[in-house]
Amino acid sequence: MTQAFKRVAIFGVGLIGGSFALALKKTGAVGEIVGVGRSRAALDTALQLGIVDCIAHNAEEALQGTDLVLIAAPVAQTTAILSSIQPHLRGGVIVTDAGSTKADVVAAARQTLGGKIGQFVPAHPIAGRELNGPQAALVDLYAGKKVVITRLPDNLDADVQRVAWAWQQCGAIIHYLAPAEHDAVFAAVSHLPHLLAYALVDDIARKENADTLFQYAASGFRDFTRIAGSSPEMWRDISIANRSAMLSELDSYLARLADMRNFLQNADAEKIAAVYSNAQRARHNWISAIEAAEKQQQQGGD
Amino acid sequence: MTQAFKRVAIFGVGLIGGSFALALKKTGAVGEIVGVGRSRAALDTALQLGIVDCIAHNAEEALQGTDLVLIAAPVAQTTAILSSIQPHLRGGVIVTDAGSTKADVVAAARQTLGGKIGQFVPAHPIAGRELNGPQAALVDLYAGKKVVITRLPDNLDADVQRVAWAWQQCGAIIHYLAPAEHDAVFAAVSHLPHLLAYALVDDIARKENADTLFQYAASGFRDFTRIAGSSPEMWRDISIANRSAMLSELDSYLARLADMRNFLQNADAEKIAAVYSNAQRARHNWISAIEAAEKQQQQGGD
Repeated sequence: MTQAFKRVAIFGVGLIGGSFALALKKTGAVGEIVGVGRSRAALDTALQLGIVDCIAHNAEEALQGTDLVLIAAPVAQTTAILSSIQPHLRGGVIVTDAGSTKADVVAAARQTLGGKIGQFVPAHPIAGRELNGPQAALVDLYAGKKVVITRLPDNLDADVQRVAWAWQQCGAIIHYLAPAEHDAVFAAVSHLPHLLAYALVDDIARKENADTLFQYAASGFRDFTRIAGSSPEMWRDISIANRSAMLSELDSYLARLADMRNFLQNADAEKIAAVYSNAQRARHNWISAIEAAEKQQQQGGD
Repeated sequence: MTQAFKRVAIFGVGLIGGSFALALKKTGAVGEIVGVGRSRAALDTALQLGIVDCIAHNAEEALQGTDLVLIAAPVAQTTAILSSIQPHLRGGVIVTDAGSTKADVVAAARQTLGGKIGQFVPAHPIAGRELNGPQAALVDLYAGKKVVITRLPDNLDADVQRVAWAWQQCGAIIHYLAPAEHDAVFAAVSHLPHLLAYALVDDIARKENADTLFQYAASGFRDFTRIAGSSPEMWRDISIANRSAMLSELDSYLARLADMRNFLQNADAEKIAAVYSNAQRARHNWISAIEAAEKQQQQGGD
């Protein structure tokens, strides 16, 4: 359980993969880290910054002597990367990923890895920054953050524990969800909010008086739309990958908005206040729970 | 133009009225400030904190020797306050307000003030905090913030300029919009976003697995829903007061969400990316413009 990895191969040495590498190195949880990726410039930067110890030119090179593989490239590349790994994947080597959606990744892994699917332990670290690339990597990006492992029935307990241990070395807190449950949860609390924020800014930007509107937008609008400043390519891929869960959440929300539309039209102050109060109370309780957990963590608790 | 007010009466000595009072006092723009309000405790606090110099027990007392009246109580009280002021409103005395909606306030003022409507100069300072009450008042709450004056055809230029001057003494930047235009603009960039944030948190809180959902909500969700932590009573009143402009903005947004629903259902990555990219670009330009303006202000420009 507590044995360090000999060699970790990271496909995609950007913010996510780079921060994982820095944290593993700091805690001595790995002998050597090899970087692989499509961008030579990113790999060179990662090498210069000491994020990786060496660079592999292909999957075969990357997997030589490697006991853990992390796929941290944009999710659109996951299938291609899994395909390139498959022929060189010896028994006992663990592959994990960092994708924001899981059911689609699991389906791709089943198809490409075939009989080796048990070696793939899907995971999703809940952490990020507005910056990207290896120069954005932080040794403590995952400290106190959640990592959701969506283990497969095919996985060995020991392999799941090895992946959990690696993330724990980064300071992360491990949670377990089934892949479909993971996707439904994040559709509700992350993917749909991104779509809503993008759609609102787009809607305003298309209006004739957009300049006037933006001129009067203040700090509330700024916070509400901060997630609409995220990478459009990344969120397009997430939206497509998780579209069925997102549709289900969107429909639930549209039904609530239809209610709100009626309340407004009928000037039903009481029903509007009920929704606003319920939301304010729920958010307050949520924030209080977060702050209590943070306090406990600072005090060295769990 | 640059002559100080002899006596300013403030109806509602909370965050908004209290901050106005502190700023006017600091710059010597007022001889005396009198507080009026329903809450004796708030008035006493304001007196203790030096926000007001004295307390009036009714509108008649408040208007004795007063040359400027600010109505800064919850908007639901505006009509009652205007009615109480009307019999005691001598010629030359200016009344202004700080309400978040303007068409409804103007209609109420026309009805209650009758022939004295010209003395009412409606305004809306775009500033706030999460805290309320006189103890939350800040001398620099309005520094660098916008105040929108929605002047009436009945107003004298000199009176509008006096109100503008008062807010400028608080460090605010004066903008002018017609009342209906004001309400349409703030429906789009403030009132609808509040409704959307409240409705989303409410929708999630009503789900059976709400606890699990909140458990995985992260910083993006926290920022997106920050405005759902605002006072439900205040936003109920704003929603009712500005419901027709909000309905119009909500319908525009619902149409955009219906498009997004189709794009998701058809897995139309290109169209989703177009919306996300347009939003990200528009938001980036908006933030850049804000930052440029802030820089200019810091350098002593306008």
